[in-house]
Amino acid sequence: MGISRGMDHLTFRFELAQQLRVDSVRASNAAGSGHPTSSMSAADLMAALLDGHLRLDFDHPDDPRNDHLIFSKGHASPLLYSCLKAVGAIDDAELLSFRKFGSRLEGHPTPVLPWVDVATGSLGQGLPIGVGLALTAQRLDRLPYRVWVLLGDSEMAEGSIWEALEHAGHEQLDNLIALVDVNRLGQTGQTMHGWDLDSYAARAYAAGWRVLQIDGHDPEQIETALKDATAGDGRPVAVLAATKKGKGVGEVEDKQGFHGKALVHSDEAIRELGGIRDLRVDYAKPTGDETPHVFPVRGGGLPAFELGAEVATRKAYGEALRALGDRRGDVVALDGEVSNSTFSELFREAHPDRFFEMYIAEQQLIAAAIGMQVRSWVPFASTFAAFLTRAYDFIRMGAVSRANLRLMGSHAGVAIGEDGPSQMALEDLAAFRAVHGSTVLYPCDANQTVRLVEEMADLTGISYLRTSRGATPVIYPPGEDFPIGGSRVVRGGEDVTLVGAGVTLHQALGAAETLAREGIEARVIDLYSIKPVDVDTLRRAAAETGGVVTAEDHWPQGGLGETVLSALAGSGTPVRPLAVRTMPGSGTPAELLAQAGIDASAIATAARELLAA
Amino acid sequence: MGISRGMDHLTFRFELAQQLRVDSVRASNAAGSGHPTSSMSAADLMAALLDGHLRLDFDHPDDPRNDHLIFSKGHASPLLYSCLKAVGAIDDAELLSFRKFGSRLEGHPTPVLPWVDVATGSLGQGLPIGVGLALTAQRLDRLPYRVWVLLGDSEMAEGSIWEALEHAGHEQLDNLIALVDVNRLGQTGQTMHGWDLDSYAARAYAAGWRVLQIDGHDPEQIETALKDATAGDGRPVAVLAATKKGKGVGEVEDKQGFHGKALVHSDEAIRELGGIRDLRVDYAKPTGDETPHVFPVRGGGLPAFELGAEVATRKAYGEALRALGDRRGDVVALDGEVSNSTFSELFREAHPDRFFEMYIAEQQLIAAAIGMQVRSWVPFASTFAAFLTRAYDFIRMGAVSRANLRLMGSHAGVAIGEDGPSQMALEDLAAFRAVHGSTVLYPCDANQTVRLVEEMADLTGISYLRTSRGATPVIYPPGEDFPIGGSRVVRGGEDVTLVGAGVTLHQALGAAETLAREGIEARVIDLYSIKPVDVDTLRRAAAETGGVVTAEDHWPQGGLGETVLSALAGSGTPVRPLAVRTMPGSGTPAELLAQAGIDASAIATAARELLAA
Repeated sequence: MGISRGMDHLTFRFELAQQLRVDSVRASNAAGSGHPTSSMSAADLMAALLDGHLRLDFDHPDDPRNDHLIFSKGHASPLLYSCLKAVGAIDDAELLSFRKFGSRLEGHPTPVLPWVDVATGSLGQGLPIGVGLALTAQRLDRLPYRVWVLLGDSEMAEGSIWEALEHAGHEQLDNLIALVDVNRLGQTGQTMHGWDLDSYAARAYAAGWRVLQIDGHDPEQIETALKDATAGDGRPVAVLAATKKGKGVGEVEDKQGFHGKALVHSDEAIRELGGIRDLRVDYAKPTGDETPHVFPVRGGGLPAFELGAEVATRKAYGEALRALGDRRGDVVALDGEVSNSTFSELFREAHPDRFFEMYIAEQQLIAAAIGMQVRSWVPFASTFAAFLTRAYDFIRMGAVSRANLRLMGSHAGVAIGEDGPSQMALEDLAAFRAVHGSTVLYPCDANQTVRLVEEMADLTGISYLRTSRGATPVIYPPGEDFPIGGSRVVRGGEDVTLVGAGVTLHQALGAAETLAREGIEARVIDLYSIKPVDVDTLRRAAAETGGVVTAEDHWPQGGLGETVLSALAGSGTPVRPLAVRTMPGSGTPAELLAQAGIDASAIATAARELLAA
Repeated sequence: MGISRGMDHLTFRFELAQQLRVDSVRASNAAGSGHPTSSMSAADLMAALLDGHLRLDFDHPDDPRNDHLIFSKGHASPLLYSCLKAVGAIDDAELLSFRKFGSRLEGHPTPVLPWVDVATGSLGQGLPIGVGLALTAQRLDRLPYRVWVLLGDSEMAEGSIWEALEHAGHEQLDNLIALVDVNRLGQTGQTMHGWDLDSYAARAYAAGWRVLQIDGHDPEQIETALKDATAGDGRPVAVLAATKKGKGVGEVEDKQGFHGKALVHSDEAIRELGGIRDLRVDYAKPTGDETPHVFPVRGGGLPAFELGAEVATRKAYGEALRALGDRRGDVVALDGEVSNSTFSELFREAHPDRFFEMYIAEQQLIAAAIGMQVRSWVPFASTFAAFLTRAYDFIRMGAVSRANLRLMGSHAGVAIGEDGPSQMALEDLAAFRAVHGSTVLYPCDANQTVRLVEEMADLTGISYLRTSRGATPVIYPPGEDFPIGGSRVVRGGEDVTLVGAGVTLHQALGAAETLAREGIEARVIDLYSIKPVDVDTLRRAAAETGGVVTAEDHWPQGGLGETVLSALAGSGTPVRPLAVRTMPGSGTPAELLAQAGIDASAIATAARELLAA
């Protein structure tokens, strides 16, 4: 228990909760915006959690033994920051900098603060990320830390919450505790289930959770539940707390119309809450001298493929990842139940302890990877590139979390053939380029893939590797270097430049052969690094040749073509961007590449037209 | 019951199911790929459904009274196409064109076939779309048709399925029947729950569904369940059918390693299944002479805003949508529990019968809209632009579904201010531009917004309106035309061109004022239609002025800047693209626009530098 300062511990808890409410009101008032009422409902829960249950050394936030605390309801940031003040991590002046330009106390929490693992504020993300951290504790770090996630009831409607409930139950993550602040009111009205705790309980129980239902404003019930929650019987724990939004201030308590607003009568509210306090919590720290588990490594080289062999880049990914796992104990892999398509199964077979089957739940797939990198593991997550779009909000938020994520999307473009457009990623380059700080890679051969996978392990931010379903010829000898941000001039020529990547690089080479027979010498550039891009090589080619043809197995927007156009802005060299422009159906890869106008024949035609214009 | 041809009906059902299996094997074999084993598990269910339960006139697929059938497990397309043959909708020759170039029978179903409402193949989408259709039946069409959705068990792990379960239960959609083909085996191994029907039952029951558990290969149990399923007691119905993948062929039945592959020994398999049959089902047709409900309209004009007034474009959206609802009975609105932020609440208040609260479940939000447009309603779905990324896979698949969807995303960019990056859409233009056939609009004032909303109602494909949180001055008189694909030269000038849209249009105008005082005459273009874009006006400006500055409240990739660069490809005019390049935090809109380098001052500086270079 915390410092009681002469109070019994329940009185202390009450006073601390009131302080958290007052500080939430004050911070929001200083900002002129924020979510004080959403903070006030959970104040009793957080007061109790801070006072003896959360084992987190705020002076050493990187201690691997620390518990983790995630505010899935990120809009309750005033409460989080008030907690940080109560443990002495920030001072009152900083609290009142809430939402101001340059402050670490942003409108929703981000890891700009050392006590915040991940950014929240897009609802429904905290619990699946918590699943990732709880998996990390049990299967990677092998440490007894716990993961506490504070959720709102509105966000329980998100499918990602159900993915998390399912996975946590299936994986028996009894180190994961969800504190659900059931304050009944959403932004515009009552939630689907109001205060019907039984309805949440039935869902969580069905998913294999232990469920504790309490009055979220009763200190004794909270204390009993938090104690009980850490008993560890193989089931994750959901503490369902019936609370009142705006609790403690009559003007707003349990009333609609006060979501996301500073209180108008804040002075009266603070008086009603008993005024400003300056209690400090003597929080619990982790004990024990356990250290994170280290996986043994066996070393060995990276795979090498013979020139001319036909190998799918997705297969090379799997082989590279397996080999990387042989060499590095920090590399882990996750897959969305398609590991025999992405070839992450090669890693799974070699390193079963470090492979995570996330089933067909792509949001949970990415969230788990985000959770793992919080603890400095090096996750590679894979599924069909088309299905990574399912998790785009998690990827976007991953950038806000400053997460280091490596993602592999297989089966890119119309070149997959018969399966049809639902399985074809045709917007992934645009989507991933538009993720802040991202790296976007698109290899054309197996040896290039191996090198890029090796580099990805050391990249910061979100990196994405686009791979192909079908086999492509190996054109680079093993062991060559392919720096991020580089490109390769695969064939020299001064008449015209052909730019491709992945499958279209091979089509561009075919076009160059055809053109050479006609006396046209084409320079062919392998733009394997779409972002960052090799501006110098592109501008030089534009300056030295009569025009540039780009070809991409992707819609025309936001992909390779626009990357090149951006690099060549203002150059005056004519550019002919070839891309997929009509909705494909099924067919052979060759038929679909031809229909899309991105095969060797179409590239050669575009080059001739460009030179004739 | 169907044509019994001398057989009792259960024998007919058995024979029909075997025919569906044989035809699934034959179609996949002819294609050399496909998912025969995933088709075979559900053949008994589909044989029974076709034979008397599904009321769908295959000769008149547009009959509004028809039941709807959605294969959420789209990879079981061989089964769907075998069903179409069994009802006489396609012939055997077409069946064997499966997955071939130009065939309507694509690898996964798409609405290229008139009996297919929506594209499936990205798992977990059929049920939430079915929720949309069931809502349409009950609240819009007000017709007694039913919505049958065939699901696989692997896809039950998708959060979108849970969103659908929740909504259907909450909305008491007893016209929705989910047939879950629990064949135990996913692509790489056993599902999370295997044949544990009770575990699925507990989940569905908790969400308010009626649950029927059966042996999915027992014709009597199936018949009883399908009869029972249409009893209509206010609850949606889940028929949980324990089945065997590859049922009927010993070599593959209930065995791993045969997912998504044509059978190697197809002749033996067909023999084991009793050979080729040519049974025809005398399917049931809808009866009754009900016609779809028509909402009364009251007419009236569109809202008009005074020049110089300060109005947020999100507010103008709400007013325009309400007015559109006054004039058109087919317009409906959906929101993700932020209707007081998107101002769709104005529509809700005026037209509560046509407003749908989808809670914080963006995948279900978009899926419901897709379901509604199947029946030719005109849905507008709104939430924060940042949170539409949660549904990106549904939007992508909406394009494959040839869906006509109108989406509004509010709170775009750093200009939202204090709430911070989790709430700021900074990748939405890139994401939406890369949706096939999409229209992307970004108004800068209230009257322009009104006109664009009016036009969106008549657009085909997926249209997206990006709106701003803060108020911006009204610069256009009411009633002016803003054609899709157009732009506006807001200010003339021959020295330099400034291109903006939304908030940056106003910053560009401010920059032009500053520059004018320095003797630099800037042409300012309002690029309200980002896709399609007004290439001619941009190229003319590039030719007539000394350079182009673009400014966008978006990351540099795939948005307004690259749109302009694409339009100006090869022009030689220098372009300076301004965009958000560092991760923002909180602050005032003005502080964040300045920090990002996209405010009037930064635009003016860029213009000066461009002219000095």
